[in-house]
Order: sequence, then structure tokens, then C-alpha cells
Amino acid sequence: MSAELKKHIEEVVLLTDEEFAHINSHFKFKHFKKHQYLIQEDEQVKNIYFVIKGLLKATFTDANGKEYIIQFAMENWWISDFQAFYSNVKSIINIICLENVELLSISKENLDKLCNESHKMEHFFRIKNSSGYVALQQRILSLLTTSPKERFEQLSRQYPQLSQRVSKTVIAAYLGISRETLSRLSTKL
Amino acid sequence: MSAELKKHIEEVVLLTDEEFAHINSHFKFKHFKKHQYLIQEDEQVKNIYFVIKGLLKATFTDANGKEYIIQFAMENWWISDFQAFYSNVKSIINIICLENVELLSISKENLDKLCNESHKMEHFFRIKNSSGYVALQQRILSLLTTSPKERFEQLSRQYPQLSQRVSKTVIAAYLGISRETLSRLSTKL
Repeated sequence: MSAELKKHIEEVVLLTDEEFAHINSHFKFKHFKKHQYLIQEDEQVKNIYFVIKGLLKATFTDANGKEYIIQFAMENWWISDFQAFYSNVKSIINIICLENVELLSISKENLDKLCNESHKMEHFFRIKNSSGYVALQQRILSLLTTSPKERFEQLSRQYPQLSQRVSKTVIAAYLGISRETLSRLSTKL
Repeated sequence: MSAELKKHIEEVVLLTDEEFAHINSHFKFKHFKKHQYLIQEDEQVKNIYFVIKGLLKATFTDANGKEYIIQFAMENWWISDFQAFYSNVKSIINIICLENVELLSISKENLDKLCNESHKMEHFFRIKNSSGYVALQQRILSLLTTSPKERFEQLSRQYPQLSQRVSKTVIAAYLGISRETLSRLSTKL
């Protein structure tokens, strides 16, 4: 039984112990080592993942081999290639562990089953999806309208612990700037 | 009764006539003229909108008065400032009609009521939210990894009718390029 998952779901809906035991039985515990791939480009994506412990990055590699970081995921976040997962197409991204990682995975079949059986869980995932949508809308606004310097300030404000957990090279790839530009920004701030 | 809304919901869940009549009674029909504001920066956002007819743009204006287009919305799309709507904060964007527009609006109170009463509607909005999330994830990938030329090609492929419905100035603002650069790209393609 995952106390983390129970706490996370109960931020949205209250559950009896029986309800949670049933929900929990649809998830599988998995652990991965730093540098391992959770999702690999060009493969089927059968699961979404709830992060119990650790940090991951979702990346896209272009035709020239340049890596872009789409997003990070850490404790209490959900991560997957959602397009591949929902539309049953092959993944176009990689999801890679930046630390040793503990996760709970749930398959599409089990997610649909849970949501179908339980109005509470359907509600939980509707709310989670809407929060995710809002977060991505903010990222788009930020990419469209802010400079790398402002994005670095936003990131440091939102996730102060991130710069202690990942290398400057990784942060630079997320901001879409070179390692050297980031060093100049970090020194200034 | 809106045949468009019924058709749209039934792409996800089947409804009896009674069920749909009940759902429909939670929406209000509204129409706006070209250039009117559906949502104005710095105001409360009480509704989300389903577009029956017409085209709109969601924009952000920076401190220097420069306008960025975050997204378009047209027939069968949902639009609002979702962050302001869900979090009950003031809007930071404008949503403006690019044509005469017909919409159905639903308030937060009515949305929550419908989803609470009807597992089917909760399911419908979960699925809609997940599709919206996937669409935004693609937009982020596109902003991070593609050139304005590639973004213009993507846009022309995804929404071939858009270039007939809006001015080149509006398309350029969506792509984040100048009107002149867009003209050069259009001639080349």
C-alpha cells in the first residue's frame, strides 16, 4: 500500500480504506536506477506513472541529435508520453531517470476500469488532467513571452530544490540555452 | 437545444434525449460580434465556452504592448482562461472574436454540478481534458524544437482553412514572427 498515493488522491477525493485498497491493487510498484529509460522513443506506451521518489526528465531528440527537455517530473507528479498512451501510437519522446526512482504504474486498461467503476476516481483524474492542462498553458505562455533569463528565474522560484538535484547542463537544456549562457545568468542572480 | 453540443458529447459518451435535455439546460447560448472580447485581462473568469460557430484568438500582451497569440479556437473547441476559471484568479489573457461568434457557456458551479450528478459527464470532461493536455504538449514540443517555417507548415497542414479565415498579421503573431517573414515563407511554400 502506498501512503504517498493515498495522500495524493485524498487531496482531491476522500476514500475509505477499502476503496483505497481496491484502487491500490490496480497499480504496480517499480524502481529504476539513475540513467535508466522509463519510456523509449519509438516504443508503445502502456502505462502512466506516479512518482513516489526521484527525479526524471522527458526529452525530445531532433534529427541532428540535439536534446530538448520538455519537462521534469518529481515526487507526486504523473509522467508518461500521454499522446502515445491515450492514442495508442509509438512514443516520440524519451523519459529518463535523473536519480534512482520509485514509481507506481497503471495501465490504460486499469485506468479505464478504475474510472469506469468509480465516479470518485473519474473525478480525481478529471481534476488532475485540468491541473496538468493549466500547467502546460503556463509553460507555453512562458516559452512565447519570456527571455531565457526570466525562465531561469521562474524555474528557480517554482522549484528551488531543482538546481541542487540536477546539473547545469540539464537546466540549460530545459531553458533552451547553452551551458555558458546559464553560467552567466546564475552568476548575475 | 444544441445539436452541435449533443453531437460533440456523443463522440465520447452516448446520451438519452432526457439526459441531454438536462445537460443542455446548464448551458447558456451567447453571441458576440467580430472584435468583441469574450474574456478580458484582469477580470474574473466565470465560464468556459463551447464554440458553435466562428473563430477566436487567445492573446497575451506583454509590458511593452506586444501581443502574442497563445491559441485559436473554432467550431467544436472549448475555450477559456482555464487557469483563471479553475483557480478563481483574475485572467492574464484576452480572448477576442476574430469573426461573429456563437457559443454555449457553462459556469464553474454548473460544470461541477453536472459532473457530480452524472458519471458520464465527468467521464466526458476527463477525456476532453486529456485531449487538451496532449494538444498543448504537442504545441510545447513544436515551440521548443521547430523553426517558424516548420510551425507554419504544421499550422497549414492541421488547419488548412485557417489562412482563409484570418489575416497574415494574425498568423504571424501566432507563429511569433514578423508579417514580412511570414510573407517570405508563404511565397516559398
